[in-house]
Amino acid sequence: MTRERLFLYDTTLRDGQQTQGVQFSVDEKVKIAQALDALGVDYIEGGWPGANPTDSAFFAAAPATRAKLCAFGMTKRAGRSAENDDILAGVLNAGTGTVCLVGKAHDYHVERALGISRDENLDNIRRSVAHVVAQGREAIFDAEHFFDGYASDPGYARACLQAALEGGARWVVLCDTNGGTLPSVIGRGVEAVIAEGVPGDRLGIHTHNDTETAVAGSLAAVEAGARQVQGTLNGLGERCGNANLIALIPTLKLKAPWADRFETGVSDAALEGLTRTSRMLDEILNRVPMKQAAYVGASAFAHKAGLHASAILKDPATYEHIDPARVGNARVVPMSNQAGLSNLRGRLAEAGLTVDRDAPELPRILEEVKARESEGYSYDTAQASFEILARRALGLLPAFFEVKRYKVTVERRKNKYDRMVSLSEAVVVVKVGGEKKLSVSESMDAAGNDRGPVNALAKALSKDLGPYQTAIDDMRLVDFKVRITQGGTEAVTRVMIDSEDGQGRRWSTVGVSANIIDASFEALLDAITWKLLRDAG
Amino acid sequence: MTRERLFLYDTTLRDGQQTQGVQFSVDEKVKIAQALDALGVDYIEGGWPGANPTDSAFFAAAPATRAKLCAFGMTKRAGRSAENDDILAGVLNAGTGTVCLVGKAHDYHVERALGISRDENLDNIRRSVAHVVAQGREAIFDAEHFFDGYASDPGYARACLQAALEGGARWVVLCDTNGGTLPSVIGRGVEAVIAEGVPGDRLGIHTHNDTETAVAGSLAAVEAGARQVQGTLNGLGERCGNANLIALIPTLKLKAPWADRFETGVSDAALEGLTRTSRMLDEILNRVPMKQAAYVGASAFAHKAGLHASAILKDPATYEHIDPARVGNARVVPMSNQAGLSNLRGRLAEAGLTVDRDAPELPRILEEVKARESEGYSYDTAQASFEILARRALGLLPAFFEVKRYKVTVERRKNKYDRMVSLSEAVVVVKVGGEKKLSVSESMDAAGNDRGPVNALAKALSKDLGPYQTAIDDMRLVDFKVRITQGGTEAVTRVMIDSEDGQGRRWSTVGVSANIIDASFEALLDAITWKLLRDAG
Repeated sequence: MTRERLFLYDTTLRDGQQTQGVQFSVDEKVKIAQALDALGVDYIEGGWPGANPTDSAFFAAAPATRAKLCAFGMTKRAGRSAENDDILAGVLNAGTGTVCLVGKAHDYHVERALGISRDENLDNIRRSVAHVVAQGREAIFDAEHFFDGYASDPGYARACLQAALEGGARWVVLCDTNGGTLPSVIGRGVEAVIAEGVPGDRLGIHTHNDTETAVAGSLAAVEAGARQVQGTLNGLGERCGNANLIALIPTLKLKAPWADRFETGVSDAALEGLTRTSRMLDEILNRVPMKQAAYVGASAFAHKAGLHASAILKDPATYEHIDPARVGNARVVPMSNQAGLSNLRGRLAEAGLTVDRDAPELPRILEEVKARESEGYSYDTAQASFEILARRALGLLPAFFEVKRYKVTVERRKNKYDRMVSLSEAVVVVKVGGEKKLSVSESMDAAGNDRGPVNALAKALSKDLGPYQTAIDDMRLVDFKVRITQGGTEAVTRVMIDSEDGQGRRWSTVGVSANIIDASFEALLDAITWKLLRDAG
Repeated sequence: MTRERLFLYDTTLRDGQQTQGVQFSVDEKVKIAQALDALGVDYIEGGWPGANPTDSAFFAAAPATRAKLCAFGMTKRAGRSAENDDILAGVLNAGTGTVCLVGKAHDYHVERALGISRDENLDNIRRSVAHVVAQGREAIFDAEHFFDGYASDPGYARACLQAALEGGARWVVLCDTNGGTLPSVIGRGVEAVIAEGVPGDRLGIHTHNDTETAVAGSLAAVEAGARQVQGTLNGLGERCGNANLIALIPTLKLKAPWADRFETGVSDAALEGLTRTSRMLDEILNRVPMKQAAYVGASAFAHKAGLHASAILKDPATYEHIDPARVGNARVVPMSNQAGLSNLRGRLAEAGLTVDRDAPELPRILEEVKARESEGYSYDTAQASFEILARRALGLLPAFFEVKRYKVTVERRKNKYDRMVSLSEAVVVVKVGGEKKLSVSESMDAAGNDRGPVNALAKALSKDLGPYQTAIDDMRLVDFKVRITQGGTEAVTRVMIDSEDGQGRRWSTVGVSANIIDASFEALLDAITWKLLRDAG
């Protein structure tokens, strides 16, 4: 069976930038465009040139891509020709081979928001698209509020699509701008439009996640015949976000009934980079990756329930809908209260530690994990701390260095401008290879801001580890989480730290204490030890 | 048109607890059950009694609810009678009026995971359900891996449902255990099962979010005829989570084609508590609420794009699919603070502060609250800190005392027994009534345990406030919560403190800083100030 071609259109750089708090720099846009191209999307919408200085600068600096680069704008305004519309000219001036213009498709918006006649709007759509095509560009028409418009006046909504097609548009895209249309309604709408004569292979779908069904709405449209899907990386976008391409792509590539019917530009090899691509975007946004994200989340293939965990060890297909390696993710069989010995062996194997079924250390390790979890530790996610605990029990933990003592001071007082300011200072004393090393750091960052006592401590601890220093130089702390596990004055603090290194490894460690500084120190120490296990072994 | 009744089944306390890193205490379970009951779900699944000590304790302590409380377990094992299965007995011993038993519906799992014959499995299902019913309980059967089983052997999967119905089950629930089945496949499966004779009003749906379509999968099942929907608050659950009831409920209540066809137990008034319910769960989990969450996210009705924002001011329906007030959420439009001002006056009145509608301080307070919230403060719960901020702006805050400086030292070193121990010490300098007072405290409690630097600081700060000392002597810190509001190396810490006094008052304060000690100090200071406002006024 020949598979039909399905086209992927990414709008992370335009609609994704409408997310509250998101504003990409030109460099970041270039980096994201390169990642999208490596992934294999067909279109990269780069922004609205003319409307936004960063967007104009991006198009000037745009990297060469296999994907088609697309500039976004709106149809010409009434009362002037397409040739004389300066906003449209600004879009065309970006020089992209593809141009996407948004226009109204809902009678109410034409009359209420634009305040022009319905015919004028049709004329604006037709002439704007024709102008783009006359310049030798590929034209795409985004039909704003299409589904609401179709519900209000199906004939007029269809006439808007028709005007764009008459103007020469390669694609007309049905946009659910308010995000309120449910998948079954989208599916029936697409079917109706195709039945009314718009060819499915010129029809795109653009959904939003306001009812948490943007991905399903896109799938429903494809099932009904649309052949272009618009979305963003990690579902970025205004309000609740756009359709998440990171969830859509593996479904279209791997799952029934899609995989056998369609072909996309995403290769199997590129699909294995999906998790990395998703994390890269979070990194740029300085966001903590969503653990529960479909396909790429750190928990997406984590099995906590004891029954599930033991079945997974027999046959992964029992509780996994796909092989996590296909999307560059990994299985996690966490330790928890519900876990047993077989779970433990699986977890040790993941850390590269093969232990006999009858090894006397196994029950001891399990007991220690349970005892520590009742104190507030959590090894579900802190796999690196788990490995260190296990290696210690198994006698497989080298003594890289020893911490002799540390001291942290936090001081708050008035500065010379009579303003209250804080400064922390940390002294750490370690013994490495028989040599005692004192390191001191303060909490001020390069910009002169106080980053607190944990920051000072982390810097002092990783300042001079003698022969091990080169092994830890490329590591950095990427996330820091604090939780009080027992409330009130007896508060016990759990600190979880995520670290990363230059080779793209990422690992989590945990520390627990009534003293938050101690808890942080413990997690930092584990993070460094794990890195040394990998790179100074 | 009479509307059909649709039943909502919540499994936050059971399947939701399978989330990595989640372990509810009994108190937390009680609080969540009460919130679910107030929301109006029909069933509250409380856990697996016998398998988990916390779950057993919860059923013993369970609050009276209008909703049916349900204990979860599994069908009896082969080779023993239902009466003699101790695991099943443990479930029944919880004494709930409803019992839900999970069993296999996939031939492969019967043979591979259970290692019993297909007929034995049918017998286990029938007899287990019949045993529950014979005890006078309502029985529900969760058909594990139903859709995979139906794809593999439809006759056998159906026979499993049939066995449960023969045993007297009120509901048979189609579980997409691995979360890999897409909405259209779920819809067709439900249709087929109903066509084959299982009544839709005895059919439930249980989906997981592994393809980011759990909500849509549930909707597809209802559209195909299922009449019970299972899910969790905020989509908590193993791997990528369960169907999110917080997104499903408003869709079923407010959106076409559902709202006109179905009736649920959720009233319009309860729906307005949806955002609060969602935030309450995040509070318990110490999670930062997802800004982009459908319906309840802080960004769900935020309009960033200039074009959208100005249209919204003309007519909210232009870019909003529902009125945010219906779910207890609020519109966020840059530059529009009309709604904000009337909210603010209400909040001030709660603190006993009556302010004129035209008072020039109002917009200034609103601006300060917004600016501080963007730094990480949160005044939703910290009403005492809000009152202090407002009083300062209104010139209604007495200067009780002034903090001149403080210094905290944390030291970790070996003690005389060669064990690493920690000790913190805090010095606080305040000026009270023209007099400078130095106080010093250490972190050791009466039992000789180190309670950390925040404890030392709290003790030093409240050690000697001169004339105000008697007013604060009966106050104590009852809860301490820490949250990192921005991840990574730029981590900003928010500390929330709950305090209590001898008169039974309880109040919450907040502090924010990159420095956790400073953030704690700020919250402590507000706590003392609020107490002095009440008792030293």
